[in-house]
Amino acid sequence: MHDKHCRVTVQPQGKMLSVLPGTTVIEAVASIGITIDTPCGGAGTCGKCRVQIMQGACPPSASDLKVFSNDEIQEGWRLACQTPVRNDITVHIPAASLFADQHQILVTSSGEKIEVAPAIRKLFVEMSVPSLDDETPDLLRLEQAIGSFKTDIDLLRKLPALLRACEFKGTAVLSDHWLIDFEAGDTTSQAYGVAFDVGTTTLVAALLDLRTGEEKALTSRMNPQIRFGDDVLSRIRHSTSCPDCLEDIQGVLTHELATMIESLCRESAVDRQQIYEVALAGNTVMQQILCGIDSRFLGEVPFVPAHGRGLMLAARRLGMPIAHCGMAYVFPIVGGFVGGDTAAGMLSARILEREAPVLLVDIGTNGEIVLAHDGRLWSASTAAGPAFEGARITCGMRAARGAIEKIVLDDDVHLAVIGNTPPSGICGSGLIDLVAELLNHGIVTPEGQLLLPSELPLSLSNVLAQRVRITDDGTTEFLVASRSRGQTEEPIVLTQRDIREVQLGSGAIRAGISILLKKAGVRAGNIRSVLLAGGFGNFIRRNHAQRIGLLPEGIDHERIVYIGNASLSGAKWALLSTAARKHVEALARQTQHVDLSRDPEFQTVFADAMMFPSQA
Amino acid sequence: MHDKHCRVTVQPQGKMLSVLPGTTVIEAVASIGITIDTPCGGAGTCGKCRVQIMQGACPPSASDLKVFSNDEIQEGWRLACQTPVRNDITVHIPAASLFADQHQILVTSSGEKIEVAPAIRKLFVEMSVPSLDDETPDLLRLEQAIGSFKTDIDLLRKLPALLRACEFKGTAVLSDHWLIDFEAGDTTSQAYGVAFDVGTTTLVAALLDLRTGEEKALTSRMNPQIRFGDDVLSRIRHSTSCPDCLEDIQGVLTHELATMIESLCRESAVDRQQIYEVALAGNTVMQQILCGIDSRFLGEVPFVPAHGRGLMLAARRLGMPIAHCGMAYVFPIVGGFVGGDTAAGMLSARILEREAPVLLVDIGTNGEIVLAHDGRLWSASTAAGPAFEGARITCGMRAARGAIEKIVLDDDVHLAVIGNTPPSGICGSGLIDLVAELLNHGIVTPEGQLLLPSELPLSLSNVLAQRVRITDDGTTEFLVASRSRGQTEEPIVLTQRDIREVQLGSGAIRAGISILLKKAGVRAGNIRSVLLAGGFGNFIRRNHAQRIGLLPEGIDHERIVYIGNASLSGAKWALLSTAARKHVEALARQTQHVDLSRDPEFQTVFADAMMFPSQA
Repeated sequence: MHDKHCRVTVQPQGKMLSVLPGTTVIEAVASIGITIDTPCGGAGTCGKCRVQIMQGACPPSASDLKVFSNDEIQEGWRLACQTPVRNDITVHIPAASLFADQHQILVTSSGEKIEVAPAIRKLFVEMSVPSLDDETPDLLRLEQAIGSFKTDIDLLRKLPALLRACEFKGTAVLSDHWLIDFEAGDTTSQAYGVAFDVGTTTLVAALLDLRTGEEKALTSRMNPQIRFGDDVLSRIRHSTSCPDCLEDIQGVLTHELATMIESLCRESAVDRQQIYEVALAGNTVMQQILCGIDSRFLGEVPFVPAHGRGLMLAARRLGMPIAHCGMAYVFPIVGGFVGGDTAAGMLSARILEREAPVLLVDIGTNGEIVLAHDGRLWSASTAAGPAFEGARITCGMRAARGAIEKIVLDDDVHLAVIGNTPPSGICGSGLIDLVAELLNHGIVTPEGQLLLPSELPLSLSNVLAQRVRITDDGTTEFLVASRSRGQTEEPIVLTQRDIREVQLGSGAIRAGISILLKKAGVRAGNIRSVLLAGGFGNFIRRNHAQRIGLLPEGIDHERIVYIGNASLSGAKWALLSTAARKHVEALARQTQHVDLSRDPEFQTVFADAMMFPSQA
Repeated sequence: MHDKHCRVTVQPQGKMLSVLPGTTVIEAVASIGITIDTPCGGAGTCGKCRVQIMQGACPPSASDLKVFSNDEIQEGWRLACQTPVRNDITVHIPAASLFADQHQILVTSSGEKIEVAPAIRKLFVEMSVPSLDDETPDLLRLEQAIGSFKTDIDLLRKLPALLRACEFKGTAVLSDHWLIDFEAGDTTSQAYGVAFDVGTTTLVAALLDLRTGEEKALTSRMNPQIRFGDDVLSRIRHSTSCPDCLEDIQGVLTHELATMIESLCRESAVDRQQIYEVALAGNTVMQQILCGIDSRFLGEVPFVPAHGRGLMLAARRLGMPIAHCGMAYVFPIVGGFVGGDTAAGMLSARILEREAPVLLVDIGTNGEIVLAHDGRLWSASTAAGPAFEGARITCGMRAARGAIEKIVLDDDVHLAVIGNTPPSGICGSGLIDLVAELLNHGIVTPEGQLLLPSELPLSLSNVLAQRVRITDDGTTEFLVASRSRGQTEEPIVLTQRDIREVQLGSGAIRAGISILLKKAGVRAGNIRSVLLAGGFGNFIRRNHAQRIGLLPEGIDHERIVYIGNASLSGAKWALLSTAARKHVEALARQTQHVDLSRDPEFQTVFADAMMFPSQA
């Protein structure tokens, strides 16, 4: 009986089954759990169950001739409900023909649903072996099995040997419509990608399983380019200061990203040869330097980026230690310094799907602000400095194990430390808490003055008062806690200079917000939600962000939502979904970039915003 | 008054003009000689005069809203007859909107008309310079001027500097929809390409002006791979005989092609930096080795090529000394050893446009035969050997200066020599003439025997009879002429072994033709035309091709047409026309490849075909 069965190969699932001749394609694939959408119940009238017969003869039915053009018929398009299997066939089922529930949906921690349909696709194929009766050229044989694709000469050079080594049973690796590799056997279960948030100060990377969207590992580092300067302009200056300097400063970064990939692989026991794509989101300067693009003119008025749309390039060109055929997606630029990280943030915040006006505030060394109102988008960037990422703060650190992320002051100081360990330093959210509490207790004045012990309010507890100390250089500091450094205990303090850094950072951001609101004609009180993004801690007390003046007054603090590292989330989405990639490209092009430095009021507004609000 | 004019930049022509506000786009471009097609006479009803406004505002008219979709309106599509110019604009006129006579048409020497619309396009653009009021990223600025394109990271890395060095006035170089370079100033008048016929024995190259299609120079060489063996199988064997052997044998060829390009440039005084594309047509083995593709399996049953469709790759990957950004187009493969040269031949012969049945016979070391009948195409290749290209023949040479290309025998021998110089050797057409005449005079028997002086017919003139000589090894030879070698005179002779080579070559081709005719069910007498192609001389006497049995009997010799180097012509067309490229891809896929060696009758037919026809 066996010889009477027909073999059906199903793509892109790469599954195979045997059916009796006469079974329709729709029934055949249903038997292995693939449900094709049929609103008309299989009557051949709705035209929804479109499939493409890649190999094997399937004469078109009367319904096919009605629904499809001649070209489509030629290309093998058929209605699955009207097509009986009569011999061995390979059938390709486009995602659009699947019953909606069949799509792989990832539900993120925040409850968002993403359809997992990445640019990287793996298709297992079992092709017939060439014979005297079938001398089809190798690439056309593969095309018959998986549909048309492009490929480059490097893969083609070795493809004949690859195909024969595995007897034409292997896995095609595609990046969009490019065939980038062909692997022996069925490797469809191994496909990973790495999403990067490339910050001026902090680098964060997540390793994702591209089939399920599952995050397998996460890691973060300081950006080693800091040695060339804290801010983006100093990075550009370094990149143009000698003929090899761009390559230097690029290499320092790509080398660090490479070690992050290695660390992710160790942690998750994933082979880096199974990583096929990286998605990179950073501000314009970070991205351009990362890509080795001449950025001299980005550092000069009028600060023009080299590209707008996202880039696709071979990941090996950026020194990424992933599969040799791996690709790199670099996010689209909005304009000026507002880059791919903001575009990624807008994507993951679903900024256009929320009730407007919405404000997205991404707090980083370059702070970015986006305002959505009336279907339009405005954005600006502002040099907030690295304070909220723990840099340039005496005892600052990034939000990692040992960081004080939450501080409460009553009669004494109460801390929450990431990882429940003894504290090593203060991260962004702890810093905001601390400054807000010092303001609330009158230890710091609205002008940002940390009072001398003799000036402290009398209402203060003795224990708190004793934490205010005069340093050797005559300024004051506040003792937060102690940390062990080897055998000795060291104080964790907040200095007068640290408070100035916080003033500069929150002032820059609030000034940016004000200018953007003015530009769009939106009053702060009308804002429906403020999405606070950034890597400064796992949570942030919304009223404290307002207390230090990071956000304008007049916004109900219920409307402030902390959305975490939105850039990284956006980079992850883009790895998992070509639709998300298309969407972020549109968002970037739709957004109007506002150059704050050109606003005649900016300096005044900034000076005002440097002052902490006078009342809680 | 000057400030009241609006500046109109016209693409892809790269022209600029000033008009009074209110002038319609159609009138504006007419003033510089560009005629847009308007069957409705400018009433806005026929929708033919579609243009795309790339830069500058042009509100859509009522007709626009009727004719175009919302997306198209957004993308700047307008009817040229309904669009007044109100400010500075850049307008792109698609070829389809031009009045037919505006297309650049090349008329070839054989009277064929080709529309010159190459894959390589150069567009001169004058962009606005970035300012505080216009911070558009560089790539988007260029996109606004020339429409959307893709580009790679290498160009992007240096693009910001390139654009500014020429103050945003320069020439975009496109290969299809890829931006491959940007040159300062207007360089649109310099765009060249090189077409190659990459034969097993002979290499031919033509340098073309891509704007006009004019051939600027032509050169030919022996394929230096001959040192690794005469035929394609020995080339494959060498390429797989050691790990570096493929690279070796590839390098020998690409190096020779490179010197040919240099020679073409010298001859035509064209700068090789102005050559942006090469088109390469060769048989499957030549093309695969040229591209560095593993060809081990092409040399084993069932002789499967690596690719079917044509390839596009960076020309520098093949070591071509043209513009660094230059591209290489490699022709599609039909199947087995029937490669891009045959596809190119079918293209230039316009095989499907002729009255069928048509036979295309391309005589090379690998002889290829195509039969078109009833809308179908069959092809086969046969190892004809290099005799007709002058190789393996004692005094053979390719059809170059000094080659005897025509021979008449009456009472003595009369020669025509290419370049009207003293003869240096015999090329293919001369060889065919000579053997045919020797048969006609009874000096050679139908079995291919060169008679001994004592066996010669008595009717022969003394002068001719004395030209038949016995050599030291006891075989006979025929003295054709003498050539000078330095101080001494050397005889130009045809030996018994040479005649055997001719028998093998013409036998292989005639056997191939017979099998193909049988396959298609066509009788030789019904063939409407035989297109004889190859580089064996500038003309061929049709009756002589039949006399030596190259073509089957029963074909009226009026129906035999010599079409020259059809592969080279096809390669030239593909350089000049993307439509031709599309057509040749379709031809290659439509053609059924027939493996002659699998036909059980081939050996018998071949043995028969080795005999010369017994009567003239």
